[in-house]
Amino acid sequence: MKRINLLSVGAVTLAGIIASTVPASPQAQQSGSIFVTQIPRGYRDWKLISVAHEEGNLNSFAAVLGNDAAIKAYRSGKLPFPDGAIIAALHYRHTSSEENDKVFGRSQSFVAGAPTNIQFMVKDSKKYSSTGGWGFAQFNDGKPVDEAMLKTCFPCHQAIKDRDLIFTRYAP
Amino acid sequence: MKRINLLSVGAVTLAGIIASTVPASPQAQQSGSIFVTQIPRGYRDWKLISVAHEEGNLNSFAAVLGNDAAIKAYRSGKLPFPDGAIIAALHYRHTSSEENDKVFGRSQSFVAGAPTNIQFMVKDSKKYSSTGGWGFAQFNDGKPVDEAMLKTCFPCHQAIKDRDLIFTRYAP
Repeated sequence: MKRINLLSVGAVTLAGIIASTVPASPQAQQSGSIFVTQIPRGYRDWKLISVAHEEGNLNSFAAVLGNDAAIKAYRSGKLPFPDGAIIAALHYRHTSSEENDKVFGRSQSFVAGAPTNIQFMVKDSKKYSSTGGWGFAQFNDGKPVDEAMLKTCFPCHQAIKDRDLIFTRYAP
Repeated sequence: MKRINLLSVGAVTLAGIIASTVPASPQAQQSGSIFVTQIPRGYRDWKLISVAHEEGNLNSFAAVLGNDAAIKAYRSGKLPFPDGAIIAALHYRHTSSEENDKVFGRSQSFVAGAPTNIQFMVKDSKKYSSTGGWGFAQFNDGKPVDEAMLKTCFPCHQAIKDRDLIFTRYAP
């Protein structure tokens, strides 16, 4: 399970440390910690950026959503993302749907299965200047993962500096 | 291409005829036609219902979104969906991402490729009483498909009456 989550951070690319100083995310923050203990409020209502699917050990199906600042930046096509932008990746098992296949008469349908984790990336160019201006976070069953796991995010994301460290492209 | 679209209607399940009488979709309507000529305004800003992937000939990757009436119904768990509910399926090619795989060092990443079509289902229990209360529509490159194609929707959807004809389940 730990391996899966580590891979997930690197592969699906979305995570975030929710800072109390990020205007778009007025979350409570543990004193002295740069890691958030609460999931950003309202993220499930955010707009769609795109979808993603990771095969192999991950077997992951994701919906990638953005808060208003992130969506505005995507739609304008201007990089880097502004401070306050937050991107969320809602991960589920990539699951064969027997009930759908039964209707279609063939095996072809895959749906979002059990939720696995939610990852966030939060832009704050000053606070997270050492990691390209992005903070990373992941929640498993609503609980934040430990710092050691989050330290694996940046080394992978920094490979795509020309896209401001964000793997997911906007789907029209 | 026609075959793909026909399959898509049956398989991914979402389509809609946008009626001028549907309160949540005040779209212009061609006089004398029950088929919409305009895509529902603002659908790209709607909230996420779930994601879907169809293999085989479809090779389809979908984000399924709902207007406020649809999302409210999903979250309440109450069926049938109320009049005015609209469900949208944004379809793309299920596409291997070489740029992501290069960073990950292995072939595993699939993303939304070229858009293929957008489908809508619109609930109006009176207007569409002959098709379970749902109107169906599909747009290819922004243009509505012909009525013959839309007539293939209902026979497949009516197989799931216990879910009010909607295949897609809400992802938490």
